[in-house]
Amino acid sequence: MRLEHDFLGEIEVPDNVYYGVQTLRAMENFQITGQKLDSDFIDSMAMVKKAAAKANMATGRLDTIIGDAIVTAADEIISGKLHDQFCVDPIQGGAGTSVNMNMNEVLSNRALEIIGEKKGNYDRISPNNHTNMAQSTNDAFPTAIKVCTIRKGRTLVDALNNLAAALEKKGAEFKDVLKMGRTHLQDAVPITVGQEFAAYAASVRRGSQRVEEVLRRLLTVNMGATAVGTGLNAEPEYISEVARQLAEITHEPFITAENLVDATNNTDVFSDVSGALRTTALALIKIANDFRLMASGPRCGLNELDLPARQPGSSIMPGKVNPVIPEVLNQTCYQVIGNDLAVTMGVENGQFELNVMEPVMAFNIFNSITYLTNAVNTFNKLCVQGVNVKKEQCEKWLEGSVGIITALLPHIGYENSSMLAKEAYKTGRPVRELILAKKLLSKDAMDIILSPEEMTQPGIAGKKLVNM
Amino acid sequence: MRLEHDFLGEIEVPDNVYYGVQTLRAMENFQITGQKLDSDFIDSMAMVKKAAAKANMATGRLDTIIGDAIVTAADEIISGKLHDQFCVDPIQGGAGTSVNMNMNEVLSNRALEIIGEKKGNYDRISPNNHTNMAQSTNDAFPTAIKVCTIRKGRTLVDALNNLAAALEKKGAEFKDVLKMGRTHLQDAVPITVGQEFAAYAASVRRGSQRVEEVLRRLLTVNMGATAVGTGLNAEPEYISEVARQLAEITHEPFITAENLVDATNNTDVFSDVSGALRTTALALIKIANDFRLMASGPRCGLNELDLPARQPGSSIMPGKVNPVIPEVLNQTCYQVIGNDLAVTMGVENGQFELNVMEPVMAFNIFNSITYLTNAVNTFNKLCVQGVNVKKEQCEKWLEGSVGIITALLPHIGYENSSMLAKEAYKTGRPVRELILAKKLLSKDAMDIILSPEEMTQPGIAGKKLVNM
Amino acid sequence: MRLEHDFLGEIEVPDNVYYGVQTLRAMENFQITGQKLDSDFIDSMAMVKKAAAKANMATGRLDTIIGDAIVTAADEIISGKLHDQFCVDPIQGGAGTSVNMNMNEVLSNRALEIIGEKKGNYDRISPNNHTNMAQSTNDAFPTAIKVCTIRKGRTLVDALNNLAAALEKKGAEFKDVLKMGRTHLQDAVPITVGQEFAAYAASVRRGSQRVEEVLRRLLTVNMGATAVGTGLNAEPEYISEVARQLAEITHEPFITAENLVDATNNTDVFSDVSGALRTTALALIKIANDFRLMASGPRCGLNELDLPARQPGSSIMPGKVNPVIPEVLNQTCYQVIGNDLAVTMGVENGQFELNVMEPVMAFNIFNSITYLTNAVNTFNKLCVQGVNVKKEQCEKWLEGSVGIITALLPHIGYENSSMLAKEAYKTGRPVRELILAKKLLSKDAMDIILSPEEMTQPGIAGKKLVNM
Amino acid sequence: MRLEHDFLGEIEVPDNVYYGVQTLRAMENFQITGQKLDSDFIDSMAMVKKAAAKANMATGRLDTIIGDAIVTAADEIISGKLHDQFCVDPIQGGAGTSVNMNMNEVLSNRALEIIGEKKGNYDRISPNNHTNMAQSTNDAFPTAIKVCTIRKGRTLVDALNNLAAALEKKGAEFKDVLKMGRTHLQDAVPITVGQEFAAYAASVRRGSQRVEEVLRRLLTVNMGATAVGTGLNAEPEYISEVARQLAEITHEPFITAENLVDATNNTDVFSDVSGALRTTALALIKIANDFRLMASGPRCGLNELDLPARQPGSSIMPGKVNPVIPEVLNQTCYQVIGNDLAVTMGVENGQFELNVMEPVMAFNIFNSITYLTNAVNTFNKLCVQGVNVKKEQCEKWLEGSVGIITALLPHIGYENSSMLAKEAYKTGRPVRELILAKKLLSKDAMDIILSPEEMTQPGIAGKKLVNM
Repeated sequence: MRLEHDFLGEIEVPDNVYYGVQTLRAMENFQITGQKLDSDFIDSMAMVKKAAAKANMATGRLDTIIGDAIVTAADEIISGKLHDQFCVDPIQGGAGTSVNMNMNEVLSNRALEIIGEKKGNYDRISPNNHTNMAQSTNDAFPTAIKVCTIRKGRTLVDALNNLAAALEKKGAEFKDVLKMGRTHLQDAVPITVGQEFAAYAASVRRGSQRVEEVLRRLLTVNMGATAVGTGLNAEPEYISEVARQLAEITHEPFITAENLVDATNNTDVFSDVSGALRTTALALIKIANDFRLMASGPRCGLNELDLPARQPGSSIMPGKVNPVIPEVLNQTCYQVIGNDLAVTMGVENGQFELNVMEPVMAFNIFNSITYLTNAVNTFNKLCVQGVNVKKEQCEKWLEGSVGIITALLPHIGYENSSMLAKEAYKTGRPVRELILAKKLLSKDAMDIILSPEEMTQPGIAGKKLVNM
Repeated sequence: MRLEHDFLGEIEVPDNVYYGVQTLRAMENFQITGQKLDSDFIDSMAMVKKAAAKANMATGRLDTIIGDAIVTAADEIISGKLHDQFCVDPIQGGAGTSVNMNMNEVLSNRALEIIGEKKGNYDRISPNNHTNMAQSTNDAFPTAIKVCTIRKGRTLVDALNNLAAALEKKGAEFKDVLKMGRTHLQDAVPITVGQEFAAYAASVRRGSQRVEEVLRRLLTVNMGATAVGTGLNAEPEYISEVARQLAEITHEPFITAENLVDATNNTDVFSDVSGALRTTALALIKIANDFRLMASGPRCGLNELDLPARQPGSSIMPGKVNPVIPEVLNQTCYQVIGNDLAVTMGVENGQFELNVMEPVMAFNIFNSITYLTNAVNTFNKLCVQGVNVKKEQCEKWLEGSVGIITALLPHIGYENSSMLAKEAYKTGRPVRELILAKKLLSKDAMDIILSPEEMTQPGIAGKKLVNM
Repeated sequence: MRLEHDFLGEIEVPDNVYYGVQTLRAMENFQITGQKLDSDFIDSMAMVKKAAAKANMATGRLDTIIGDAIVTAADEIISGKLHDQFCVDPIQGGAGTSVNMNMNEVLSNRALEIIGEKKGNYDRISPNNHTNMAQSTNDAFPTAIKVCTIRKGRTLVDALNNLAAALEKKGAEFKDVLKMGRTHLQDAVPITVGQEFAAYAASVRRGSQRVEEVLRRLLTVNMGATAVGTGLNAEPEYISEVARQLAEITHEPFITAENLVDATNNTDVFSDVSGALRTTALALIKIANDFRLMASGPRCGLNELDLPARQPGSSIMPGKVNPVIPEVLNQTCYQVIGNDLAVTMGVENGQFELNVMEPVMAFNIFNSITYLTNAVNTFNKLCVQGVNVKKEQCEKWLEGSVGIITALLPHIGYENSSMLAKEAYKTGRPVRELILAKKLLSKDAMDIILSPEEMTQPGIAGKKLVNM
Repeated sequence: MRLEHDFLGEIEVPDNVYYGVQTLRAMENFQITGQKLDSDFIDSMAMVKKAAAKANMATGRLDTIIGDAIVTAADEIISGKLHDQFCVDPIQGGAGTSVNMNMNEVLSNRALEIIGEKKGNYDRISPNNHTNMAQSTNDAFPTAIKVCTIRKGRTLVDALNNLAAALEKKGAEFKDVLKMGRTHLQDAVPITVGQEFAAYAASVRRGSQRVEEVLRRLLTVNMGATAVGTGLNAEPEYISEVARQLAEITHEPFITAENLVDATNNTDVFSDVSGALRTTALALIKIANDFRLMASGPRCGLNELDLPARQPGSSIMPGKVNPVIPEVLNQTCYQVIGNDLAVTMGVENGQFELNVMEPVMAFNIFNSITYLTNAVNTFNKLCVQGVNVKKEQCEKWLEGSVGIITALLPHIGYENSSMLAKEAYKTGRPVRELILAKKLLSKDAMDIILSPEEMTQPGIAGKKLVNM
């Protein structure tokens, strides 16, 4: 045991741990979720500390022996070491001070070891004076959230792009499969399955772009703002240098905010990020729902899509297979939308020079990105890539449909078409048959108008007939 | 024009209007929604004022000439008069003071007329000293919200009960129509349409009970709490009398809160109310969605339900009819759920002795009840009461299904059943045919097991066979 | 390795694990949150299985050797054993089938061991035929959610009651400390700190009652409903017995739902539960916010409350201590409100005979209860129990205030009082001084009217003077 | 009365009205909110129709006599005429078909009048064949929503820019007023009121840019997509022309979507828009809350800000003035956030080729923009422009504060500073006095370090001393 103290008093710290008195207090204070800090977040926080140490050495304020040791310790953490030393609950009071001090203490104690000193010898390397030099939780913590969100966000962007590509590939595969288009779940006019999948792909791509775009807004950081944004105790040279260092370490073009007070007080950018995840989730829900509807059946449903069978679907109904992968995508999206509200309420509750609710924002943004990335990859690999169309069923539906009547509109008018539709529904007779019986159009004309190409591409189906 | 003043200065008021200086200020300050106050709310506020005037007369503090005039004026408002004199925006700052003063001014000026005085002669009857006697906005306003919510809530309860009754009636009508039950949108085991409608009815009934129950919590009011709940300027005799009077006027058993400070500070009951509306909306969404799914088609969908045709469904697709009534129910429910979040944020933001966000809570609760009542009645009358089942289609689906295999489980085991299901799906052959071909069961045994009664009531289908 | 199969094919299962083929498939399919199943939920699921096994033995359908072995295995799980065998992700497709089959497999394999058989010998004890006898995921899973929610909910009720008791105790301690009451954050009229704490306690007590009441609705279960609520394969004797057994095992009065179809299709009760947590969270947010406001300072804020110092508040500002415990309570409540939206969306998305989104509902309800219980206990022990009032500061504020003028209303009228207030604000002179200077009241009269007792209890302050 | 019919039957239409059978059916079907269609939306819909008529004339498909009459009728509507002819409820089933047909009917009947025909003579000018030519509700309706949102959105952008400018102006005015910065509502380090206001302005400007940016995404429309996005009955020449015409009419650079199927199926852009409003509302809430906190008092609060007195604050407390304008801004923002959830649920519920929930999205987006624009303008004009700082109070707070100690950190270290802070809090002695008493720094050094400029600008306060 070693004895550490802060201005609240002394506390015994086990010899083997790298964290110190403030981490111990936080561990006692915050026992809420039982979750660990996000591993990427630990890395990101270490990157921020590394950038600060390098910047402080560059301005000459930090001794290079100490600074280099801190940098080495940070690199160890970034390489995956010492992650078990981060023990504070992700939902915590104090606006992230406990995460920041946990990192400051671990880095200081590891740095002390590196220079051959004992852990706890804070006169030599102090968590507050050296590792936290020219920093405050109020700049280091939100900056680390941004670093982490960007890093995690990139994996989501990749996942979305991969899903879009898979949907595009399937769209190409299904490009000639004609099916009944539906609006209001009611038969509308024909469309190809390829067109549907291309539209899914387009909305996923837009999701990817949406996320990428919002990540760009996170590149503006408030390092150097210190406590309230005024930059007290942070020299101008340090401020410009720390952003440069952070950019170099992370390979992301971080820059210093123009207005550091604003960047410290306001967290609206986290609402932007969470909102982008929310909207992307909504687009995915639509796809999952369509998949489930098209795969409904197999005997008593639409039965247009054949999803890969992933597991027996029932503990009681033999042979049943359920669309479990779209279902898990749905639920993950609901979670993301729920998390978005938690972020919203966090952002709502800033006061004066700080929003102390940043921990709950970070917790939810990180979880949302992780879960969503996993669900998107799962949906891509275990469902989309193996999906097949039941072409015969699609054709069968289409044959019996009345919706093709819309193509006749420019030829026989809305009124006539309506009456024809009414009769078809009433009698059950096919539309083609009725048209011929009523001699409204010749068989040849009808074949031209109702050809798949004419009906699924812009233009008046059978326009050449009109002009004849 | 008459000249009125308050401690901020003088202002000219048109001669013909019954409101005064404070209403005019509020009209200038709050131009947000352009909406009117809910008409029921105006009535409810007048009832609260009437109760207070009667209680103040009962304690002898209010002169009966003045008090009676105020009561008469309140009765006029309750009977529908003077509603055009309430001009403040429902979303307003000041925690409802503007609604309260609008009412105090209209009542005072009308009361002045009644006793033969000129409007504006507040030395005789003062909005603050007489009409608002022993009250504060902080007790009168939330009490009026409660009165109004209960009154409006009763209409919603009626609407829900009527809908439940209509669903039950349809359930009885459809009690022998067998159809394929579906879980995960996948064919499961048979059920009757009657059972489905009875389940819809049960969830609507539960909604009605849920709303009724939560209305009961609103019967506790804080009249007499005055400004901060301590009851300053409200005599104990008045406090007990005002609740009694309110109960008499409204025919609802209002009582005084045990802890007036709590009842003034806290608005959690409005979250309870809004939450009950939210959950009820969720139950309705499920029914609307099921209706839309069952009515999908008419040729390329499930086509099990025949909804009344209410209007042409498309400006371009002739003969198309859409499920517009379930769709409008869906959207109304989304609105209720959105409004619930606005209420949530209002309730979140109380501070110390008051929650000043009550106006936005009231606005959303009133709108939600009004919209939901309308949508429920619309759904009942324009959809449920005219709905028909397409019995033949239900039978057709069922005939081809494999899901009935579950009934065989106790007779041939999960393994055998699974393999049979697999073969049926693969070959497209009917399950009955396969069973006979494989001589797993006799035709007689099969007919017993797969009879509608056996399959849709608790018990092992064909149990007598097991015991044979 | 042992070889297991289902109707999708064969799979190798490590010899030492108790789960089987279906769990393995689920583990591959669902890699979303990386979280474990809630430990209480594993217990609850085991209780449900135990109840079913006992009921199946009671009806004679299940062999007692097998049944007893299943019961013994279930008891082991309930006593905390084998929890590491539950490896499926809490967010999963398939409506909980994977949880149910994970439990069925572990119980079956453990039961096989107990009767001296090898794991995997499902001909002897089958996960589907024996352990799942007369059950479906669609009854067993939601029933286990209910059992778990009730069990966890009881701990939350206790936590809330303890918090309420602590607040009441503090309220008694502070009952004579007079302070300025505030509405709109503006000086209103005096109140005692004791009254404020009693109001906090009342709202927490109401939260406890609200949760307790909603838990009661969970006592209605659908065991025996099997796949779609019709009870196929579940005998009536079993249905009544299984609820009785469950009640005995859990010591909670579980009963069978009147309408099993409704109870299987509809999940509105989970919205009720989550809504109750949401509203309770809102009440707690209000308290946390008030604590943070009252503790603001210590030099430049209200400075009325002295919260226990829990940890240094800043990495850069020496001596700063922050209200970290109320802050963590706030954030936990935001999480609960976010989770509530995830539940809402789950409940929204039921279709036909089932709502397949139950896993995401369970995940969020369990997390919300766990987090909220932890946060409430933390707030109680680390904050409320150690809180002190800064009595002198409260008095100092009050002395300078103008708000006491309200007590004079019945004596000198609203107009005079307003003008007096205006002058006091303008000149900065104390109200008492002005009153004496203007000879509006005698010093004796003023002392009576403005005594703490008169101003903080219902009634006209100084009423005896009026009557004199 | 004139007799009109559609394929559901005949209906009598009053002679004087311009709408027809389909509008009448919709009026009967949808009685939900009792609200009117947004006036800007009526204009926008007319613009879309005008663009379509012009494009149809350009392709030669629409007779110019008819086309010109439709254009003239549309221009009348755009100039504000005939708005009373739009009677359908904004929340409606049918995905906006009723709005579209209401417009088609009014335009057709007015166009008939213009060419000297009687209303109802649809053989001459048909709502479906002519006014709706080459269109479907599924392209015309969402396009009109986009036109309207952009037009309304521009007013919000202006309002936000004006507010930002007002805050910047006030920031300049208050640039030398030093005050205590607060984090966690606890005294932190000094900041100027000017810095705070500049940060408010920055967040409002960002809101304006956020809205502007999201409006840009609305410039992509799906005119020509017709029913399901395939463009059936819309010629390619028409498709390119109609976007060009719309751009000319609206003076906004509208373009045709690359993927018309995607643009018809997916409504994620409305979630983007609503999310941008939501985030902007969150930034405004923060400002309103800060204003309310700073204006708290006047005797028993922070009392740093003097808001314009807008109305008497209480019906019972004389002289009380409340921050009613920030309060109404708060509540409006809660409404916007609630509306955002309604939009979210709408977007969630698209199926296949259409999202039929567009009406509820439009209703909420329009309301949110209207309300928010009003509230922002109100806050600007009735609060921000008249706000004053209570400079003396700000100074008084600062004098007594301990937070300035942070500036000493680089000079005496974190440990010494902490102990000093502790002693200051304990003894109540000013920090400056303690420093001198302990001879930690000379008076001159201290004056340099603690000068306003040093403490509120980036850099080490008193750095020159360090280097001396």
